[in-house]
Amino acid sequence: MIIDSHAHVVVPAESYKYMAELVASRANPSLAPKLTDQAVREAGQTIIDIMDRVGTDIQFLSPRPYMQMHSVKPARVTQLWTTHMNDLVHRTVQMFPKRFRAVAGLPQYRDESPRNCLDELSFRVKEQGFIGCLLNPDPTEGDGAPPPGLGDEFWFPVYEKLCELDIPALVHSAGSCQPRESYTLKFINEESIGITNLLASKVFERFPTLKLIFPHGGGAIPYHMGRFRAWAVRNGGETYDQMMRRLHFDTTTYDKHAIELLIKTVGADRVLFATEKPGTGSARDPISGRDYDDLKPVIEEIGFLSAEDRRNIFECNCTRLYNRFKAD
Amino acid sequence: MIIDSHAHVVVPAESYKYMAELVASRANPSLAPKLTDQAVREAGQTIIDIMDRVGTDIQFLSPRPYMQMHSVKPARVTQLWTTHMNDLVHRTVQMFPKRFRAVAGLPQYRDESPRNCLDELSFRVKEQGFIGCLLNPDPTEGDGAPPPGLGDEFWFPVYEKLCELDIPALVHSAGSCQPRESYTLKFINEESIGITNLLASKVFERFPTLKLIFPHGGGAIPYHMGRFRAWAVRNGGETYDQMMRRLHFDTTTYDKHAIELLIKTVGADRVLFATEKPGTGSARDPISGRDYDDLKPVIEEIGFLSAEDRRNIFECNCTRLYNRFKAD
Amino acid sequence: MIIDSHAHVVVPAESYKYMAELVASRANPSLAPKLTDQAVREAGQTIIDIMDRVGTDIQFLSPRPYMQMHSVKPARVTQLWTTHMNDLVHRTVQMFPKRFRAVAGLPQYRDESPRNCLDELSFRVKEQGFIGCLLNPDPTEGDGAPPPGLGDEFWFPVYEKLCELDIPALVHSAGSCQPRESYTLKFINEESIGITNLLASKVFERFPTLKLIFPHGGGAIPYHMGRFRAWAVRNGGETYDQMMRRLHFDTTTYDKHAIELLIKTVGADRVLFATEKPGTGSARDPISGRDYDDLKPVIEEIGFLSAEDRRNIFECNCTRLYNRFKAD
Amino acid sequence: MIIDSHAHVVVPAESYKYMAELVASRANPSLAPKLTDQAVREAGQTIIDIMDRVGTDIQFLSPRPYMQMHSVKPARVTQLWTTHMNDLVHRTVQMFPKRFRAVAGLPQYRDESPRNCLDELSFRVKEQGFIGCLLNPDPTEGDGAPPPGLGDEFWFPVYEKLCELDIPALVHSAGSCQPRESYTLKFINEESIGITNLLASKVFERFPTLKLIFPHGGGAIPYHMGRFRAWAVRNGGETYDQMMRRLHFDTTTYDKHAIELLIKTVGADRVLFATEKPGTGSARDPISGRDYDDLKPVIEEIGFLSAEDRRNIFECNCTRLYNRFKAD
Amino acid sequence: MIIDSHAHVVVPAESYKYMAELVASRANPSLAPKLTDQAVREAGQTIIDIMDRVGTDIQFLSPRPYMQMHSVKPARVTQLWTTHMNDLVHRTVQMFPKRFRAVAGLPQYRDESPRNCLDELSFRVKEQGFIGCLLNPDPTEGDGAPPPGLGDEFWFPVYEKLCELDIPALVHSAGSCQPRESYTLKFINEESIGITNLLASKVFERFPTLKLIFPHGGGAIPYHMGRFRAWAVRNGGETYDQMMRRLHFDTTTYDKHAIELLIKTVGADRVLFATEKPGTGSARDPISGRDYDDLKPVIEEIGFLSAEDRRNIFECNCTRLYNRFKAD
Amino acid sequence: MIIDSHAHVVVPAESYKYMAELVASRANPSLAPKLTDQAVREAGQTIIDIMDRVGTDIQFLSPRPYMQMHSVKPARVTQLWTTHMNDLVHRTVQMFPKRFRAVAGLPQYRDESPRNCLDELSFRVKEQGFIGCLLNPDPTEGDGAPPPGLGDEFWFPVYEKLCELDIPALVHSAGSCQPRESYTLKFINEESIGITNLLASKVFERFPTLKLIFPHGGGAIPYHMGRFRAWAVRNGGETYDQMMRRLHFDTTTYDKHAIELLIKTVGADRVLFATEKPGTGSARDPISGRDYDDLKPVIEEIGFLSAEDRRNIFECNCTRLYNRFKAD
Repeated sequence: MIIDSHAHVVVPAESYKYMAELVASRANPSLAPKLTDQAVREAGQTIIDIMDRVGTDIQFLSPRPYMQMHSVKPARVTQLWTTHMNDLVHRTVQMFPKRFRAVAGLPQYRDESPRNCLDELSFRVKEQGFIGCLLNPDPTEGDGAPPPGLGDEFWFPVYEKLCELDIPALVHSAGSCQPRESYTLKFINEESIGITNLLASKVFERFPTLKLIFPHGGGAIPYHMGRFRAWAVRNGGETYDQMMRRLHFDTTTYDKHAIELLIKTVGADRVLFATEKPGTGSARDPISGRDYDDLKPVIEEIGFLSAEDRRNIFECNCTRLYNRFKAD
Repeated sequence: MIIDSHAHVVVPAESYKYMAELVASRANPSLAPKLTDQAVREAGQTIIDIMDRVGTDIQFLSPRPYMQMHSVKPARVTQLWTTHMNDLVHRTVQMFPKRFRAVAGLPQYRDESPRNCLDELSFRVKEQGFIGCLLNPDPTEGDGAPPPGLGDEFWFPVYEKLCELDIPALVHSAGSCQPRESYTLKFINEESIGITNLLASKVFERFPTLKLIFPHGGGAIPYHMGRFRAWAVRNGGETYDQMMRRLHFDTTTYDKHAIELLIKTVGADRVLFATEKPGTGSARDPISGRDYDDLKPVIEEIGFLSAEDRRNIFECNCTRLYNRFKAD
Repeated sequence: MIIDSHAHVVVPAESYKYMAELVASRANPSLAPKLTDQAVREAGQTIIDIMDRVGTDIQFLSPRPYMQMHSVKPARVTQLWTTHMNDLVHRTVQMFPKRFRAVAGLPQYRDESPRNCLDELSFRVKEQGFIGCLLNPDPTEGDGAPPPGLGDEFWFPVYEKLCELDIPALVHSAGSCQPRESYTLKFINEESIGITNLLASKVFERFPTLKLIFPHGGGAIPYHMGRFRAWAVRNGGETYDQMMRRLHFDTTTYDKHAIELLIKTVGADRVLFATEKPGTGSARDPISGRDYDDLKPVIEEIGFLSAEDRRNIFECNCTRLYNRFKAD
Repeated sequence: MIIDSHAHVVVPAESYKYMAELVASRANPSLAPKLTDQAVREAGQTIIDIMDRVGTDIQFLSPRPYMQMHSVKPARVTQLWTTHMNDLVHRTVQMFPKRFRAVAGLPQYRDESPRNCLDELSFRVKEQGFIGCLLNPDPTEGDGAPPPGLGDEFWFPVYEKLCELDIPALVHSAGSCQPRESYTLKFINEESIGITNLLASKVFERFPTLKLIFPHGGGAIPYHMGRFRAWAVRNGGETYDQMMRRLHFDTTTYDKHAIELLIKTVGADRVLFATEKPGTGSARDPISGRDYDDLKPVIEEIGFLSAEDRRNIFECNCTRLYNRFKAD
Repeated sequence: MIIDSHAHVVVPAESYKYMAELVASRANPSLAPKLTDQAVREAGQTIIDIMDRVGTDIQFLSPRPYMQMHSVKPARVTQLWTTHMNDLVHRTVQMFPKRFRAVAGLPQYRDESPRNCLDELSFRVKEQGFIGCLLNPDPTEGDGAPPPGLGDEFWFPVYEKLCELDIPALVHSAGSCQPRESYTLKFINEESIGITNLLASKVFERFPTLKLIFPHGGGAIPYHMGRFRAWAVRNGGETYDQMMRRLHFDTTTYDKHAIELLIKTVGADRVLFATEKPGTGSARDPISGRDYDDLKPVIEEIGFLSAEDRRNIFECNCTRLYNRFKAD
Repeated sequence: MIIDSHAHVVVPAESYKYMAELVASRANPSLAPKLTDQAVREAGQTIIDIMDRVGTDIQFLSPRPYMQMHSVKPARVTQLWTTHMNDLVHRTVQMFPKRFRAVAGLPQYRDESPRNCLDELSFRVKEQGFIGCLLNPDPTEGDGAPPPGLGDEFWFPVYEKLCELDIPALVHSAGSCQPRESYTLKFINEESIGITNLLASKVFERFPTLKLIFPHGGGAIPYHMGRFRAWAVRNGGETYDQMMRRLHFDTTTYDKHAIELLIKTVGADRVLFATEKPGTGSARDPISGRDYDDLKPVIEEIGFLSAEDRRNIFECNCTRLYNRFKAD
């Protein structure tokens, strides 16, 4: 089975209008739209057509990260929008239960404690069967001083809830307010910051069952292992390679060299197949003639992988982590 | 002829998606959508159907004010959005030349000088036949200290351009970032602030031909003339009633008592017919059975107006101010 | 009996000097002046002479709002000044017990919780017989981000105390630090903001016996009922006209048209006679030959009021709300 | 002749009311009071009575420094107040030409360049015969980051004007917004900061004829010469004692030991007699039975002064600096 | 015995490198150096050679105040540095137990409560025999709004701990971020601010056994007693001279006139011998031929001191305050 | 010849002390140390010993980047420190002319225009023979909003000077004030931000001869080419691979996989040999038994490189860019 562990909903026109109104009115006043079944179905079918084209069996759907508006003032904007998007995810999954699973967005807000997200998360997981969530390490979106790094106690309420619910979080930033740092690059930088903070902290001693996935090949870290290996040697104790294996990663780097480097660095048992398709990588590569995010053939071509490695990457690493997943 | 001097475009779905993307990506990257003729035509026809229902001959269309995003960082967001909206206004007017005229939005940005707007304004008026523009007295949208009041030199570059182009500006704020002040109320408060600043300044000595229209019945000022009359008496010189006649007002208060008070206070030659329909007032009044913003019958019912007063309000006050207007 | 429910003390010269010293020294050091009986008597007599001239029997006296200095740093300035002013109110009332009743100012400070005001309020009401208080919805006076709107929990400690003491609050802002918004206009805008926040909130469900008076004819809201009626229709439930009747208003708009519009909009049982005389409106109207704030004849001239309406406005609405009032 | 080179006007009641109104209204609106001759005369006579009691022939009068409100927003407040106070100084001097000379206050505002003060200063000196001015080294009054030190180019426009007009400036701070630093202590600290900045700068190379007086015995510096002497030795070049003689000082320390230390440190030819009477020191010393600021006998008692030293301190140092002074 | 109650460690080269790294890396990452015994011994011997030259028997050593980096972000920088410096003080004292005693630095940080310092202080005193500590009244070092004055409850946790441990604190500021106020002058100004705040507060009623020493002759206050005496007279109650005797002072003013004025003002039983040698005053006075901070002969030359006065200043005032001191 | 194009001076103890004093005193006062020839020689020899051990012929030396203190207030700190460090670089090179060449640090300061650096840069290149410089894309060091990206006009004055002097700049950030982002990671993130901004800009159209080197393997970009290739395809025009070849990169990633990926991605003619040795990578790799930054054998082991590729990487790419370099 080919599971694409990291993908996002397609947003119906009515929802875009709602987002535009929310931002323009700063949620005062606001009136959430009622999406028709037809609108939800069309959006979902768009994705399924793509999945069928590239051979994906199941996608794990979450709200589109860069549109989470975690820094738009006031907090009510992102709160209403998160509800709307999680509802959309849920309805899409219910409509196509064989093809999708639900991963929740969280109503994080700027530098406020993530405690406000716990109820929403519990509700989605316990009442609606969501199997994971997104976690944004910088909900200020670069507009002001960021909250402490992921190694800090600031995040412990979320970690505690993740462990209690036994679900993984996909660490994924949202938009970017700094003109010099596009949101697509901020994804990468935030993953690098998140990894280094976690691995310099006591988080995994405190939460040994915590499951965190760093998408996009783990930001810059696997490419810069030399730098961090030297740091670990100087500190004594575990090597950085060992530490990295506390985390999980996915293949959304859209480049064979990069995916190879990732797997060689962290191991084939730490990498999840993922495409975010349709998304950033959905442009036709003039060389291969395929979209950059059509990654199944790329992985199948990697010579040094065993059959088991491939099955792990395409399915088993994922189902092991997302253990609330049940094949339908 | 019934001219509705203050109305806004209906926004196609594709444009809402664009706005959502602009805000989410902070315009980095960004790619403006190409609206189809079909999309523009449908949006325009929606308005015309309403106009036909309530008996309006011509509407002056501008971008929807509360969606101008003048305070969303960085400036590139509102700049791109304003271009997109003015293009939409222009295409709608070109498609239905007998029913619409174009009024431009300006790419104002927070507390920066409005000089950056002059090129856009000239282009729209001289190259595309726009006949007026919106002017937002607080482009910070309440997020931070506002720019100086409309009586200040800060605004003189705009006033100079307005006089040079011989067009009026409709003073209309945009969104509101303060949770306690909804954008719809901020419209009113900004109009009150604008009027009092102008009338305490030398602006009309410096720009005797400047034409400014305060919509929504002039904010709170006509209702609070007593307060300002007393101030004028203490200062000596002109009465406040005389001063008010330097300005123009429109009928978008959606209440007969209010419109009567307005006309009695400023004179029937200073009031323009306007509805913003479809808009805030487009809800069915359970008493009259008509929409609150169906104002033609309301004005026709006001007993103390002469036939000439009515013609002035419905047409001539407007065509006198907007003298680039030409009946088709 | 003619009760002027909204008036302010005349401030003796010694107190002005004290205020000047407080601001100049930022209350460090500070030494409160001891006002002589003579100074207090002269100030009080000044008001009584005016009352006699216009036919007022009793005035409810409070500190002069625009001089409350709620935003002058540090908090000790407004704390000392409020004490001084409430003492002055108390002494004036004690000296002329047949002509005045006392309404307290509160030592509100910028965006800090109003909890610090509760002791002062209790003391003035329980120990000194004050019968109401002022409440400033924006003690930052426009210098920085305002506190949440009156519908927010931020204000509940005050509402609870008002209910416990069974006294009304007169919602009245103080000064204004923004050059473009004079304090006299800020009064109006703050009333509009206050009303809309309260009516969009659950405050009156939580505090059903809360009594709030919006002076100056309720800011801009009665003039803009059309806008808010439409909003209420869209939301379903009560009409905006019904909601408005949870509040009370007074006549300090200084204009017959405005007072008529107010009474027609909210009902003659929701309006209190008030003049703030001597104050903003104390200038001679060249048309009537009377001061703008000489409102008794204005109200007596309103044709559509019944005798009972008039008695309600001049006396009974007021005594019903201020039920600690006892005619001497 | 006994010249008290540093004293301040007594402020009439009407002016205090004006200041209170200016602060409360933030100068919007504002209406300056017309002080009666009677009010000015009474205030002036109050001072003359004191001068006669302690044997002073002439006082140099300036606005009361701590009441200059240089940091009260907006700038218009201090601008209007400075005009009012300089007018009062001028009228007082004109009324009592044998007993007073005029020293101007400047409308400095927070951290803005002092260029805005030059017109006012020229006007007072050239048109009205003022013979010097105050200079506040921190017009932010401690509310925010202060402007650069007196050794910085920031102040050169003022120094240039002082040299051009050939008048001295009395370096004197105003109020203090920091609760922990009373204005009376801030005077001292600002003088210390001012002296050390000037003496570490090139100001006197650039403006060799610049005349600056540091009141209150030169802040803390004469008491801490050891510290600065060591610094000068390490730097090479002039000694700190030599450098200090580029400045002038006055006797407003109200203590014999302190005045002796001052004179021993900077020389009897660098010290001006001054009392600021009536002012901070106007309290009865239980030991001497005289007011602390009754300094003539204190200086007369200093044993090590020659007759010429005394004449210098009481008169000649002053007339040399203030060379626009002409005995009447 | 000659006790120099106020002196600072000499810092080894390795420690300077550590400080440079801490600042450059903002303590992320950081690795404290292990100072060799040799390095510590050389630094200590440097001081002892100086002590022998000027006749000092014992010095009380603390971290060098201006290098405490209390305002360098983040807090971890000053925390690590304070630990390093207190360790150095401790090792130096242990190596030369007949010549030094240890006074602790505290890891104060900007405007945060000093509660975070209590553990470090207890540890140093109880476990390592430190006999006092430094206390910085402005750990923001002038970069932003300072914490409340020393009279405020903000400081009570420290006062409580000082009383519990029965040790004195030496009130001494650190660096200065404001270009116009050098750290050496800020010492003086902070002492003046500290004294005036304490003496206007209830601190000594609440903590009657609190022992605070103001070095550098008490800032500017003894030189400005006239100003504060007048204030005390106006307030009634104790004289300022009486109040000053609740505090203690030291002789680090490096000038005979200043030390004489200090002793005359506060009494010979309130002044501790101190030099900070080697330090600011360690430059050769061309007149005396001795270093400015070679103060033993200066004090011996003061004519009005009795033998007992001298013994008090050189030894007994100090041992009375620092009663954990035990002669070895 | 083996040229290590990216290395930094070893700092003598005296310089660390100076840096500690500069930070502690905020450069007020300050006195630069005179480094002895002996100190400079020892520092230089330390590096040469390492070079000999690993087979490097020549190193290009610059100030140690993370110690540039570009964000320490006030600007004078970094200005003095940069001068001191560039002097050290110069003296080291002069002492060992066969083994070193000089690359300058710039006195950049927070978000101020880099114009202030041009004189220093010209002086070092023209008068002292420096052959390149460092350029920090975020001199705020993360403390506040960063300056615009490298694609912005903000940087044009530097680019113009670089072209005029015909020298390359090594894009290298300094420290990091955000606790969650260590300086070592910030290097990487800043390089990613710099590359993406440049390649989305018109900089190379405007400055076709501009030479910029991105060290550390180009941050994260070569590892994330898929993401940016897709973006370029959607935009049309050049591929991202083509654009990347406008820039140059170096090998300081300390990992064979990473260096291979880099060379495959950008080409062997765009990569410069570099080690920063001694530095971050100077820790013993337990697997290879060599230091991580001993990269010569690593590159020699890369199978797919031709002899010419190797010569390019080790020498010719470098001498082509740094064309002021002359072999001695």
